[in-house]
Amino acid sequence: MASVTHDTAAAVKLADELVAEAKRKASYAAIDEHVNASTRVIGIGSGSTVVFCVDRLRERYTSESLPLLACIPTSFQSRQLIIEAGLPLSELNQFPEIDVAFDGADEVDAALNCIKGGGACQLQEKLVANAARKFVVVADYRKDSRVLGTQWKLGVPLEVIPMAYVPILAKLKSLGGKPTLRMAMRKAGPVVTDNGNFVIDAEFGEITDPVKLERELITIPGIVETGLFCGMAKWAYFGGQDGKVITRKV
Amino acid sequence: MASVTHDTAAAVKLADELVAEAKRKASYAAIDEHVNASTRVIGIGSGSTVVFCVDRLRERYTSESLPLLACIPTSFQSRQLIIEAGLPLSELNQFPEIDVAFDGADEVDAALNCIKGGGACQLQEKLVANAARKFVVVADYRKDSRVLGTQWKLGVPLEVIPMAYVPILAKLKSLGGKPTLRMAMRKAGPVVTDNGNFVIDAEFGEITDPVKLERELITIPGIVETGLFCGMAKWAYFGGQDGKVITRKV
Repeated sequence: MASVTHDTAAAVKLADELVAEAKRKASYAAIDEHVNASTRVIGIGSGSTVVFCVDRLRERYTSESLPLLACIPTSFQSRQLIIEAGLPLSELNQFPEIDVAFDGADEVDAALNCIKGGGACQLQEKLVANAARKFVVVADYRKDSRVLGTQWKLGVPLEVIPMAYVPILAKLKSLGGKPTLRMAMRKAGPVVTDNGNFVIDAEFGEITDPVKLERELITIPGIVETGLFCGMAKWAYFGGQDGKVITRKV
Repeated sequence: MASVTHDTAAAVKLADELVAEAKRKASYAAIDEHVNASTRVIGIGSGSTVVFCVDRLRERYTSESLPLLACIPTSFQSRQLIIEAGLPLSELNQFPEIDVAFDGADEVDAALNCIKGGGACQLQEKLVANAARKFVVVADYRKDSRVLGTQWKLGVPLEVIPMAYVPILAKLKSLGGKPTLRMAMRKAGPVVTDNGNFVIDAEFGEITDPVKLERELITIPGIVETGLFCGMAKWAYFGGQDGKVITRKV
């Protein structure tokens, strides 16, 4: 038994390392292709993949003396990454136009529509992506999908106003969704976002028309922002199990 | 000069009293027509007119022993009115379905589309109005308009995420609006709403198609809610200068 447990743990560790390596390679490829000496303002997404983007950005900022003016964060985590890397930190209200933003995703379809918000940062992420001339998605092979809802089964993350989560749950059910209020793991009660809101994860099965669904969701009073990012990403970099990086452009 | 000043002050006082009386009469008419022994859950709006609605509701709650279960507030002010009147206080998450909600408006057009948010409460007001089977607007004659933007010149109040107010201002300008970040009067810097957000007042001149404008505005990332209430009010009560109340229904 000890041996089996040991082997299982070793297999999990190996798989985790493969995924991390896939994220790293995709991040390096994305940063190297989209950051150059004319890049001034960069949007920094949130999540585990973005850590590698910031690693690579820090290396090049130092070695090439890149003339960056500002990195714009999308969460507490993202702000900390920028500060720890010694990159110039600022905010959208000083730099409302971003040259290029890099971010992860939970699932990306063939048209590069994304589901985002597994880390509950989709509101700030969308604000930054929306302000970027180029929005580049970086992820591992598991996020690469043809149709949203086939890989990521946890539903569309929706940031909602706390005082109305119950009527919003009811409305989502009436639209055919299976919504759940996201509960926290290390606090009692629900997850509270960096903006003080709640998150509802709403399953809609396979999402063949994400643009239509996003339009329906955003008009529901009390839904601040949805985790559907439609028509925003123009490039995607997927790190593969084989160590190769697949690039997609729309 | 003293006499002129005195006369002017007296005239202003008289005008204020006429407006207050118009609000009071409209409020009493609305409450008396839409609250009865089968009413269980009432939405309570915000602003100066709603004070009279709560006055009348308190009178009838006491004298008729109305079997109300809950009053749902739309702001700190509104919650205080409910508490001070001794009415049963609750929230949308306990009572997601409201029998009837009463609220003021800054301007009401012929189809009873409204501009709301002069008091920066439009987000909670819209959540409550949206949860109500009947949404009743109560106002004085000055708010009665044919086309939005002709009486209320200060623009459409938009509740926005603080971190993105600058790109949102730019986007509103690109849509032909004249947006202004609403500054506070008794704190330095901008007004902060009861939900911790900022307010932008965006002028669009005469708003002949408020439904279209609302759809454009709500899809802008970072705009949490707009002060355009389209197709929500089914009744409006306007108190007149002559002491009469004009009722409209769509």
